[in-house]
Amino acid sequence: VAGRATGPPGRSVANKLFTVLDAFSAGNPQLSLNEMAQRAGLPLSTTYRLATELVEWGGLERGPGPGYRVGQRLWELGALALCGSTVHTLALPYMFDLYEATHENVHLAVLDGREALYVQKVSGRRSIPVRSRLAGRLPLHATGVGRVLLAHAPPQLLDDLLERGLERFTAHTVVAPKHLRRVLSDVRRTGVAYARDELTLGTTTVAAPVFDALDSVVAALGVVVRSSASDARRLAPAVRCATISISRQLRASAVTGVGSSGDGSAQWNAT
Amino acid sequence: VAGRATGPPGRSVANKLFTVLDAFSAGNPQLSLNEMAQRAGLPLSTTYRLATELVEWGGLERGPGPGYRVGQRLWELGALALCGSTVHTLALPYMFDLYEATHENVHLAVLDGREALYVQKVSGRRSIPVRSRLAGRLPLHATGVGRVLLAHAPPQLLDDLLERGLERFTAHTVVAPKHLRRVLSDVRRTGVAYARDELTLGTTTVAAPVFDALDSVVAALGVVVRSSASDARRLAPAVRCATISISRQLRASAVTGVGSSGDGSAQWNAT
Repeated sequence: VAGRATGPPGRSVANKLFTVLDAFSAGNPQLSLNEMAQRAGLPLSTTYRLATELVEWGGLERGPGPGYRVGQRLWELGALALCGSTVHTLALPYMFDLYEATHENVHLAVLDGREALYVQKVSGRRSIPVRSRLAGRLPLHATGVGRVLLAHAPPQLLDDLLERGLERFTAHTVVAPKHLRRVLSDVRRTGVAYARDELTLGTTTVAAPVFDALDSVVAALGVVVRSSASDARRLAPAVRCATISISRQLRASAVTGVGSSGDGSAQWNAT
Repeated sequence: VAGRATGPPGRSVANKLFTVLDAFSAGNPQLSLNEMAQRAGLPLSTTYRLATELVEWGGLERGPGPGYRVGQRLWELGALALCGSTVHTLALPYMFDLYEATHENVHLAVLDGREALYVQKVSGRRSIPVRSRLAGRLPLHATGVGRVLLAHAPPQLLDDLLERGLERFTAHTVVAPKHLRRVLSDVRRTGVAYARDELTLGTTTVAAPVFDALDSVVAALGVVVRSSASDARRLAPAVRCATISISRQLRASAVTGVGSSGDGSAQWNAT
């Protein structure tokens, strides 16, 4: 019934609904009806009808202000995505250990498309503020975890990124293809990636790869510290220690099936 | 277009889509097409069409097995729900502190309907396994955080729960109305709630309320320990210390607007 009289033919109701939801982002967590309609490219009446249905279901919520925001039902549903993520679940305790040892930001990212997607994050009151956000995305070439993922991705991904052009975030961002290739080669050789002042001035990331039972890199674990800290490199053994532990747990879970969603796969969209 | 010829009139496409998504739960994170159709009460063809659109969007994913599961796009969207949650964001660092001091399970719950909804959870490798799950729900009467929330909820909620009857999970679960009322009165008087062996034999929760700037209880923070631990009561000062800190942060954020979604509200669907 709601499938009729809403816009041009060829675009399904489901598709319109997704477009309404896609209007929300970390930068725009709250939207007015007008903003939703505009961002979704839908008539106000259609948007209103879909928003009302979404609110009834719990996928959107009103206010606190005049607008709409993502609702609790979507949060609950979204949390189920992690049931299939072995690496996500197994990594967390080791991330807490690493946080406890360093009191710095600790995050776990997976490769998603052409970006690093942050799937876990631990940070305390004394940790330096960072740009990474849970469920947020950051570029591969300018972050520690991104470099780990890029270094172990199929070479076409790097070619693709280079063709599109690398964004320069600070004067220190490595954007020269040759330079980046050398950096990535170092990452593969040493097992550790650094990114110093490349995304944000004043912060340095130390990151290392997490391997699954088939020795594929399924995630990258990173610690973010102040660049002014005496030597970020001193954290490399701690980060590697944590990733080695997580990788061993992944191998064990692949054998026993513990913590996996059935087939022992540690992959979580890390493709 | 997808809005036509799918089932009886009166039920919108959006509604059908929600029903398909609602088929997934923590107990059933992966479903075959048949299971989805059955649980959603929809014809196989409709379910297939909706599932296909959901997969294209990223709301569902195929496999690893033969079935479908909640996809990354829903996880990303769901994470936006937390942008509006001041208590959720402000509490986390204090939860890490409490974890570091105790190495036990630390969780934060809000009242949602007639249940406690777990919105944050920290636990390590040495913490005792617990039933609480991020984005999971547990009963109010038999959990520490639930009792905190129930003790500070409008009295009609307790009446409502008593009328429906309280589930007995173990021989220790308090289900007698008079007994429960006395327990809740103690919670209000002492500022601490305990639940020993009431949901699961062998685990004890110590919980305390988090107050917002208007002195309303917006969340409950709990630590779960082995019941065999010498005295769970020794943890009460630590739990209260953390909740007092979080409450102070909430008041500060209400004044400055820091960390709030604009109006300083610390409420996150805690109704």
